[in-house]
Amino acid sequence: MPPPLPVYLDHNATTPLGEAARAAMEPFLRENFGNASSRHEYGRRARAAVDTAREQIAEAVGAKPGEVVLTSSGTESNNTFIKGAAVLSLRAAVAVGATEHPCVLCAARALARGGIGNIPVAVNENGELDWDDLRQTLAPAKEGAAKGCALVSVMLANNETGVIQDIKKTAEIAHGHGALMHTDAAQAVGKIPVNFAELGADAMTVSAHKAGGPKGAAALIVRAGVEWLPLLDGGGHEGGRRSGTENVPGIVGMGAAFAEAAANVQVRAKAMCELRDAMETELRAAGARIFAAAAPRLPNTSLFGFDGIDGETLVVMLDQSGFAAASGAACSSMKDEPSHVLLAMGVPPEKAQTAVRASLSPQTTKSETTAFTAATAQITQNIRRLSAVL
Amino acid sequence: MPPPLPVYLDHNATTPLGEAARAAMEPFLRENFGNASSRHEYGRRARAAVDTAREQIAEAVGAKPGEVVLTSSGTESNNTFIKGAAVLSLRAAVAVGATEHPCVLCAARALARGGIGNIPVAVNENGELDWDDLRQTLAPAKEGAAKGCALVSVMLANNETGVIQDIKKTAEIAHGHGALMHTDAAQAVGKIPVNFAELGADAMTVSAHKAGGPKGAAALIVRAGVEWLPLLDGGGHEGGRRSGTENVPGIVGMGAAFAEAAANVQVRAKAMCELRDAMETELRAAGARIFAAAAPRLPNTSLFGFDGIDGETLVVMLDQSGFAAASGAACSSMKDEPSHVLLAMGVPPEKAQTAVRASLSPQTTKSETTAFTAATAQITQNIRRLSAVL
Repeated sequence: MPPPLPVYLDHNATTPLGEAARAAMEPFLRENFGNASSRHEYGRRARAAVDTAREQIAEAVGAKPGEVVLTSSGTESNNTFIKGAAVLSLRAAVAVGATEHPCVLCAARALARGGIGNIPVAVNENGELDWDDLRQTLAPAKEGAAKGCALVSVMLANNETGVIQDIKKTAEIAHGHGALMHTDAAQAVGKIPVNFAELGADAMTVSAHKAGGPKGAAALIVRAGVEWLPLLDGGGHEGGRRSGTENVPGIVGMGAAFAEAAANVQVRAKAMCELRDAMETELRAAGARIFAAAAPRLPNTSLFGFDGIDGETLVVMLDQSGFAAASGAACSSMKDEPSHVLLAMGVPPEKAQTAVRASLSPQTTKSETTAFTAATAQITQNIRRLSAVL
Repeated sequence: MPPPLPVYLDHNATTPLGEAARAAMEPFLRENFGNASSRHEYGRRARAAVDTAREQIAEAVGAKPGEVVLTSSGTESNNTFIKGAAVLSLRAAVAVGATEHPCVLCAARALARGGIGNIPVAVNENGELDWDDLRQTLAPAKEGAAKGCALVSVMLANNETGVIQDIKKTAEIAHGHGALMHTDAAQAVGKIPVNFAELGADAMTVSAHKAGGPKGAAALIVRAGVEWLPLLDGGGHEGGRRSGTENVPGIVGMGAAFAEAAANVQVRAKAMCELRDAMETELRAAGARIFAAAAPRLPNTSLFGFDGIDGETLVVMLDQSGFAAASGAACSSMKDEPSHVLLAMGVPPEKAQTAVRASLSPQTTKSETTAFTAATAQITQNIRRLSAVL
């Protein structure tokens, strides 16, 4: 018998494949293996499945099927729009939230090689976008934005803190300065309702594996009429907007997962929020501080820390105790630096270094979070006791 | 009972997922769902699986694990190297074979926006690279290559005709002119032995779904020391060479499929070649011409045509008779143009328009190919009879 798997409280890093997605994918990993561009029965089955999934994805996020460009990852979606729209514009820079995911920050920085600047937009101490800084960034007078910003990219929900940004307002300000608005909504789908049309953004990134779908499937949602240079040229798939043989099983799984997530999001968000709040009450009782607690946050996400206790150490000891949590984002967790998200919020490095993230799923139970907070309290007590004598 | 599935003779478009790959993927679609960058048990299991798959892929194609950059598709691999290496170089153009896959041709053409030219290298009437034209293209005197070519991209095996190019010689000529050598080997793996080190190329594209692996997984093999600008920036995955959460099940499936394909390629190639040759004898007897028959070809591929009979029409009627074949490449089969591959070989448009591709797998049986050639003969007779009276 293998040892039991740890309690998984790292759903912002990735989620298990849901049953609906798995069942939908199964025939496309078996007899319906065709290339969706083939003009025969195998091809038609694959094409029909891709079409259905596209409709499911569109409906789940308040978009039209024609606005859905299928990609392989959130990173690809973000790189595609930020690079492709910026290069196509004649403007001098892009503006990106200071707490964006590394793939947004790095895509924006990569534009420097083409002479396009990138300007981080500040957040306040709660992790919410600083409106004055956004307006100043977009005002032509500001240095580095002489010819204005091509686009603004601000995430709908932060992967580390869970902080939810006001995208509608951000888009209004961006549009007021002639800039396009892109939002990374990878962390939002399945946790809060997401409606592309209502957000008012020109482009939006979503990813399957953050919402019960498979890894390797994602989408860039782009409002009709908005143009950008494709990153992947070739056979002309996705209306010439993203070439490459469609990952049919992945796309089908994403469609099923998004449909399931959207249908249940209200009930699940409420349940996760209650569980998360109870968990945070227990963590606070054990001496933890909760980061960004004053901001609107995803219902499933808690970023906390204990003064003087390194977050990475705590995560390792929790792992040894049978709990899977995260210190910082998984995508960059091979790097031992304090979170750029917390630093941007003005959290001092020594406090940022304490951060541990617990992110729940609709399947997470009260007994799991209670065991987690008890283990966390025990481990931090042990570390404190040891450091007192060493 | 659903009707039986058609006989599948379109393995160059995509292959069914093999049992070895499916079995290897299964745990990673279930309990081992972790993010390979996560620092806990789920993450370690995913990371170990990605490491193993990377070794399998490397060994299957004669490369080192550190030379394997995991991507989402052959299209992504081709775009990544052609664009990324060309932009990083200070040279004026890239040279690409005239019969390359659309994703190579279009990636090269996209460089024009950055002022980098693209020069097609001619092929002879057999579809083999024209050495004189390659040397002239790379000679600094040639117009459009004033500062030389950054790289040469020539496919190892053509997707439509199956023609195998002499990559070793191409690489020697490219290197003699200070150009990098890239080869798209997506169609070669599992059909002929592929050895990156022996080919002498600097970079090579391979794709899982062409060799019994899943869609959504591929790799760019790059010789150590060769540099290029990444297409996808972000969390620093793949040593900073390709960011984005690893598609763990896809990667694991690719590793298993490649290991299985490489272990059996010699025996399978021989068997497929005998079957293909017998099929072509029958097709010739029915009046077909075989394209590129004089060139070294993949053992599984046959591109043929009947004078005066539109290839697309024949494919549609074969589909109605229970046979899945292709007219042109699946990746661009939504376009009704004669094959650029055949046109580059000097085939007149009216002959190119007749082309139909049958591509076999190691599982294809003699009774399947015999039924296929009989149906093809019958359909072409019917078409001829009808056109005589209409």
